[in-house]
Amino acid sequence: MKQDLDRLMKERNLDAMIVMGRMNGNPPLFYMTNGAKIIRGRVIKKHGEPPILICAPIDREEAAISGLKVVTTNYFDYEGILRETSDLLSAEVELLRKVFDAFNIKGRVGFYGYLDQGMAYKLISTIRDRLGVEIFGESDPNLIDIARATKDPNEVKRIIEVGRRSSAVMGNTIDFLKSHSIRNNYLVDKDDNPLTIGQVHRQIHHFLAECRLDVPEGIIFSIGRDAGVPHNKGNPNDILELGKSIIFDFGTREAGGGYYFDMTRTFCLEYAPPDVEKAYRDVYDCINLLGGAYKAGAETRNYMQMACNFLESRGHPTLGSDTKNENGFATGLGHGIGLAVHEQPFFSLSTVDNTVIQPGHVFTCEPGVYYPERGFGIRLEDVIWIDQHGKGINLCDFPKELVVRVSK
Amino acid sequence: MKQDLDRLMKERNLDAMIVMGRMNGNPPLFYMTNGAKIIRGRVIKKHGEPPILICAPIDREEAAISGLKVVTTNYFDYEGILRETSDLLSAEVELLRKVFDAFNIKGRVGFYGYLDQGMAYKLISTIRDRLGVEIFGESDPNLIDIARATKDPNEVKRIIEVGRRSSAVMGNTIDFLKSHSIRNNYLVDKDDNPLTIGQVHRQIHHFLAECRLDVPEGIIFSIGRDAGVPHNKGNPNDILELGKSIIFDFGTREAGGGYYFDMTRTFCLEYAPPDVEKAYRDVYDCINLLGGAYKAGAETRNYMQMACNFLESRGHPTLGSDTKNENGFATGLGHGIGLAVHEQPFFSLSTVDNTVIQPGHVFTCEPGVYYPERGFGIRLEDVIWIDQHGKGINLCDFPKELVVRVSK
Repeated sequence: MKQDLDRLMKERNLDAMIVMGRMNGNPPLFYMTNGAKIIRGRVIKKHGEPPILICAPIDREEAAISGLKVVTTNYFDYEGILRETSDLLSAEVELLRKVFDAFNIKGRVGFYGYLDQGMAYKLISTIRDRLGVEIFGESDPNLIDIARATKDPNEVKRIIEVGRRSSAVMGNTIDFLKSHSIRNNYLVDKDDNPLTIGQVHRQIHHFLAECRLDVPEGIIFSIGRDAGVPHNKGNPNDILELGKSIIFDFGTREAGGGYYFDMTRTFCLEYAPPDVEKAYRDVYDCINLLGGAYKAGAETRNYMQMACNFLESRGHPTLGSDTKNENGFATGLGHGIGLAVHEQPFFSLSTVDNTVIQPGHVFTCEPGVYYPERGFGIRLEDVIWIDQHGKGINLCDFPKELVVRVSK
Repeated sequence: MKQDLDRLMKERNLDAMIVMGRMNGNPPLFYMTNGAKIIRGRVIKKHGEPPILICAPIDREEAAISGLKVVTTNYFDYEGILRETSDLLSAEVELLRKVFDAFNIKGRVGFYGYLDQGMAYKLISTIRDRLGVEIFGESDPNLIDIARATKDPNEVKRIIEVGRRSSAVMGNTIDFLKSHSIRNNYLVDKDDNPLTIGQVHRQIHHFLAECRLDVPEGIIFSIGRDAGVPHNKGNPNDILELGKSIIFDFGTREAGGGYYFDMTRTFCLEYAPPDVEKAYRDVYDCINLLGGAYKAGAETRNYMQMACNFLESRGHPTLGSDTKNENGFATGLGHGIGLAVHEQPFFSLSTVDNTVIQPGHVFTCEPGVYYPERGFGIRLEDVIWIDQHGKGINLCDFPKELVVRVSK
């Protein structure tokens, strides 16, 4: 949580931190500015002191909505600097020199926020050489990633609300499918034309807009063989065949930027063939097993191991026994959600991802099995919140039903 | 254009370039992968050779849509690496060591794409120390910024199409306002409730969704005093008063990621007071003066100077005479548009931004005057494309009319 920032800074011996860049696609800057609708910004925070937001004068009123103290670049005559220097790097370093002087920034400074990486390397190297501060950079999860991973009650409330709207979209989409008729073994519209995956995608986007949800990573609505490749988004030209597994997976975000939800259901129209039904039962049992097991204090890796063991016991290959596995359970078990669709904590078998579950964590649980060559894939995905007592609460109550009946 | 990459690499003596990061909010990676809908990726390009895309196995089919040669991280047993290393940085460096070995990457390597800047600094420093390549980082405009700045015919076509849909949204919005009635000096709906800026914002988002447009930076629909602060997005609780200047500015993007358009119109409902009318005429004359003047070979700074001179001659303060100016003409004149809403070329008085206009450039022309204390602001914004003959073509033909009549 944001209140952890000073502690996290102290653990890193940071005297100050700076978070910079464009706002679009920059969750660390969004987090530090409370989602101010500015084009770009620089947030300076000294240890034990509140953050200060530095922005262009034309952004000053949107910046003020952050609730932070706002100083515009006019205070440092940035426009004057830009006219006196020959390159943007020197101008930026000169601006930061004035900012560091004005706010008495010295010692060890951490750098955060998204920037072109070659530029970041050059900029930070130049700051190190010219401004006499000690540079601190860290790999992820960094200080802000860790603060963001535990959500405060208001953040949880926002995620739940996005989940509520996402469930509405899921329900509307299933109703949309049910509003069609069957000809031979596929769905047709009222003019007797086959319904296509592309048409379903467009309809889902319509439902999303109605519910004020963005899908920055797109949606997955894929059928049959394509559902067997975890991130295949679905072939727009495919028709809606009965008895094929359909995966509908979408990471939804508050429109215009903000908090995410992420959910997946798998279903078949009219009937499910025996191999799909069996695989669905395995994934269904797996998500139920896990859903009741999450608790603060446990290591994330254990849950991935639990999912691998369970699915192997049901006869599926997993990443547990083969690191290059692309069939059966071929993905991680889950990931945190918040201002990004993939953030801390992560649930895999890697040492790197392993972490201890804490109150305030919000993450997906998404076991699945994938068999493109057998023409199907299954994934179920809920969202778990670890409450203040350390208990896992499922925030996704949308029903899990394999067969969707279309015929009346 | 993308075909310039090898020349730009040669100018920098680059043996190879690598573009990395998450896809969301990462135009350089989007550009190099032709907008592949993958979660994250690494594109390697050696000088004179086609790029190769490295992605997670679960993203393999969406990656293939890029048209690039695709290699999954399974080829390098990345999952195995992740289980053997204690931190993500070491795992990433180990992966890149294998990638560099596999594709014989050595010599001078440029690093591009958005990444957390502290992580980028640490990652690239570690690569320098461990992998024996010469690091090249550059400030913006970097190699990819410069390639992106000149659009090929297909890119121009996509921008024109986004512009067509943006004009439709502008028209629908004005029609929506006209569908209301007047009570006293403001608009009311059919139940006689005052129409608010917040309701107009919601309606615009509805029109945008219908036209399959995203607005990642949000929309500006602001009235009166708020229109006098360039990036004020408008107060949702304000009512639609007659005779106040309304600025409607929106940077629109192909839904789900892609090319941008950007346009602004200013209007008053029913009538315009004399000071607004005078200021509008000045901005209108300014955009017309400039619109006919753009041509390849000229420096961008000259156009900013031209706008300052013209608006000063009409009695407005500008950034030409005061670098800290916040009244009158208080913004840059324009910016390139493409995969980002603000990209090369830029039109300001700074040395840093100055560049030579080239065929294929697509940029905004957006003079304005801002007087928050006098209760109004004016901005008009078109999009100019420099065609293959070096001639400026206005891609925004939406009419510029100050007064919108609501009464029948």
